[in-house]
Amino acid sequence: MEFTAQQIADLLHGSVEGDPQVKVNRLSKIEEGEPGSLTFLANPKYEEFIYSTNASLVIVDEQFVPEREVKANLIKVKDPYKSFAVLLDTYNKISMSKEGLENPHTIADSAQIGENTYIGAFVYIGENSVIGNRVKLFPGVYIGDNVTIGDDTFLFPGVKVYSDCVIGNDCRIHAGVVIGGDGFGFAPQDDSNYLKVAQIGNVIIEDHVEIGSNTAIDRATLGSTIIRKGVKLDNLIQVAHNVEIGEHTVIAAQTGIAGSTKIGRFCMIGGQVGIVGHLVIADKVKIAAQSGIGTSITKEGEIVQGSPAFFIGDYKKSYIGFRKLPELNARIEELERIIKELQNK
Amino acid sequence: MEFTAQQIADLLHGSVEGDPQVKVNRLSKIEEGEPGSLTFLANPKYEEFIYSTNASLVIVDEQFVPEREVKANLIKVKDPYKSFAVLLDTYNKISMSKEGLENPHTIADSAQIGENTYIGAFVYIGENSVIGNRVKLFPGVYIGDNVTIGDDTFLFPGVKVYSDCVIGNDCRIHAGVVIGGDGFGFAPQDDSNYLKVAQIGNVIIEDHVEIGSNTAIDRATLGSTIIRKGVKLDNLIQVAHNVEIGEHTVIAAQTGIAGSTKIGRFCMIGGQVGIVGHLVIADKVKIAAQSGIGTSITKEGEIVQGSPAFFIGDYKKSYIGFRKLPELNARIEELERIIKELQNK
Amino acid sequence: MEFTAQQIADLLHGSVEGDPQVKVNRLSKIEEGEPGSLTFLANPKYEEFIYSTNASLVIVDEQFVPEREVKANLIKVKDPYKSFAVLLDTYNKISMSKEGLENPHTIADSAQIGENTYIGAFVYIGENSVIGNRVKLFPGVYIGDNVTIGDDTFLFPGVKVYSDCVIGNDCRIHAGVVIGGDGFGFAPQDDSNYLKVAQIGNVIIEDHVEIGSNTAIDRATLGSTIIRKGVKLDNLIQVAHNVEIGEHTVIAAQTGIAGSTKIGRFCMIGGQVGIVGHLVIADKVKIAAQSGIGTSITKEGEIVQGSPAFFIGDYKKSYIGFRKLPELNARIEELERIIKELQNK
Repeated sequence: MEFTAQQIADLLHGSVEGDPQVKVNRLSKIEEGEPGSLTFLANPKYEEFIYSTNASLVIVDEQFVPEREVKANLIKVKDPYKSFAVLLDTYNKISMSKEGLENPHTIADSAQIGENTYIGAFVYIGENSVIGNRVKLFPGVYIGDNVTIGDDTFLFPGVKVYSDCVIGNDCRIHAGVVIGGDGFGFAPQDDSNYLKVAQIGNVIIEDHVEIGSNTAIDRATLGSTIIRKGVKLDNLIQVAHNVEIGEHTVIAAQTGIAGSTKIGRFCMIGGQVGIVGHLVIADKVKIAAQSGIGTSITKEGEIVQGSPAFFIGDYKKSYIGFRKLPELNARIEELERIIKELQNK
Repeated sequence: MEFTAQQIADLLHGSVEGDPQVKVNRLSKIEEGEPGSLTFLANPKYEEFIYSTNASLVIVDEQFVPEREVKANLIKVKDPYKSFAVLLDTYNKISMSKEGLENPHTIADSAQIGENTYIGAFVYIGENSVIGNRVKLFPGVYIGDNVTIGDDTFLFPGVKVYSDCVIGNDCRIHAGVVIGGDGFGFAPQDDSNYLKVAQIGNVIIEDHVEIGSNTAIDRATLGSTIIRKGVKLDNLIQVAHNVEIGEHTVIAAQTGIAGSTKIGRFCMIGGQVGIVGHLVIADKVKIAAQSGIGTSITKEGEIVQGSPAFFIGDYKKSYIGFRKLPELNARIEELERIIKELQNK
Repeated sequence: MEFTAQQIADLLHGSVEGDPQVKVNRLSKIEEGEPGSLTFLANPKYEEFIYSTNASLVIVDEQFVPEREVKANLIKVKDPYKSFAVLLDTYNKISMSKEGLENPHTIADSAQIGENTYIGAFVYIGENSVIGNRVKLFPGVYIGDNVTIGDDTFLFPGVKVYSDCVIGNDCRIHAGVVIGGDGFGFAPQDDSNYLKVAQIGNVIIEDHVEIGSNTAIDRATLGSTIIRKGVKLDNLIQVAHNVEIGEHTVIAAQTGIAGSTKIGRFCMIGGQVGIVGHLVIADKVKIAAQSGIGTSITKEGEIVQGSPAFFIGDYKKSYIGFRKLPELNARIEELERIIKELQNK
């Protein structure tokens, strides 16, 4: 995709200073600008870079007056940051504009496919599944039987959705994600073997959810594992059977949540956190990275750290103590020595 | 799948109380019952829900006498819990009853395929591979060359099995699992570069093993990485080259086991545990979640926690001490103050 | 693949002692040798095994004189270890010798494919992508639009490479890896919702990089996430947007690196490490497994442990103190008791 400075200025309601015919074909940071790239100057901290950048085109504030010579061509706009966001979004929309049906694919006769969808090669859609309008199923996506996918949702390459699961509108599910694998349920038998407990529930993912690459969300034993609307999950996260994650909660990469735990709304959970099963986590709770949560957190907005985790301020104090343990030990030895002396007086 | 109350009663050798023609098409928990769903009452704790449930049909004990009006239709049986388990199992079997060969697929001429198999679309089977009877290979499964898969094993969508690996009977391998990727072996060279050590062993998975979504099991450098019979692995687990996991050991999600470590039988290992390479872990050992194991555990049945881990009772005591470190420090300061006074007397 | 002792002796410039026509079809460790397998004796520690091994053929030093009867046939060479490495490599090359184009596949007309490539069934290659010579794309690989892949690189089954990413020469990318998924970037809004920040950068992977199964590397928001030449990444690793990993750095399984962090050259990072975003890690730094890195490490060659991590020697001392905390507490109680006595004197 290639655009002239003038085309971009028109899109942003700005004006060109320099060559309106100069062409750009990608976006860059101002400090990494190269010929052919378009960038922006919003933060005055970065102003120095405008005199050295090799970018062909820079979006600047309409008030901007250069102090020295600027090689790059400029587009002057009211709000450079916002304008760049508009460009990002436009760029993204164009690059995500695929539509139509690629071959080969395997779609059950009983499946219903919405309008203006993109169905890539090697996509599989099972019996009775319903795919909404403007949905994009990238190559290699697997949709089992009786699955429902809402409008405007994108499933990137190789996403697998087991039977009976439900995905809402406007979701982004990244490559390699598995939705609806069996929960990890085994009943110990008398002979120390394990009997698999059938996992016949499903996964429900509400609207506006984003899920990162290779994350795994297990189906419920009975009922549903539920990801509420607006939840953002990073890559390589484990969500076990019958978990519920509340609205607009954000979870960083490689965190794991064990079975039947219920996470509140607007929580922020760091990376590599582990949460054991059958807990309840209140709304707006924040959990530091690598923490282990072994008991329910009932206080809204609580902030915790550690494994097992407790109030983050106390954890930080304890950890300072941990670092000073050899010194602490030396102080105790000194006390013991003095006391021995005092006793022997 | 839709059944009448009478059909289900016949299956369970029970009797209908209510409308024998009422139809149900899914299972639910009693507290989440909806019209069209079937549930059960086994635990007296949940008896209250039978008066409020919207389920169309409830399996109850043959002794059950309602105290108030019950909207739902009932099926009376000898053991409601067991009956429900029978239903779960039947339901699961029906939903897993796929058979036959879907198009397109790519199967080498030299491969041998058993009877009554299901081979989904986009399945790839390499040279000389042998697939047992009643095996189900869901869409997008990749089987390399010289692979053997026993009878009654299911590989869910997108499982990849590299060449030369062996999988036993009655295994369940979930979506996105990778079996037989190269072990992580690199020999440092004089110039600080690394030379890849060829990984030419394989992975052997014995009977009745279950492996969760997106777990990765590396092939051995030489010889075999071995998962013994009855082992249950959760999602996103890392099993490095030449590891051996003993019979009926259960491992929770996101745990990692480094190269050549040998885990005993009947162990229970929590989530996000890390075990370093070349260790031996005795039978029936239990490891708490997020622990780090840096040395072999020789005592059968040992229970450990921490990173590095030690006996769980001691860990819990130390952790209480950790939480009280600021207080401990204050006590020592107080002692130092008093002793100074005593010395100056 | 089956070879006679004589064929192998010729390849290794060695001489056969025993039956030159004996056939072997696989490699094994000496202690696990079976009829039909070939092994080697390099370390005198293992000499005992040569008298008991069931291997058909053993590579030994030309100086080797057995003390007792040896069942196996021998090949005498100058350097048994090196010879075995040559064999491993030869074996590997033969097993990785696939070439040609399997059906079905989907390759855009605008894509350019090099010479002597292997393109497996169900491979997808998008618009304007360029695939180098001798590249192997195993079945089910997905290559988006505008992707460049250098010469001699292998992508194992089911690897997904999003649009605009660049992969160098001689790389090995294992099954299930996702390259170029969206970075985890969301701007909090006034209404506590999150607005997705478009992720329009790419991933650049330089030459000689190896990446383990199911690892996820996110594309940059703007600019590039960069994996420098010679880097080795194990399985199930998370690399966030705009991260840079320096040349020849090695990272073990399940480690996660948050956004915009820059890791130095020749670092060694253990498994399950977490590194927060926007840090700089100096060259040759070593990080112990399960550590958490919360601040930049500026000292070249620093070795750290803990969460948060500090110098490993100090960590080990503090951890000894942690294990003795109950004892420390008892010592303080004793001191408090004695001091009370002294005060009351």
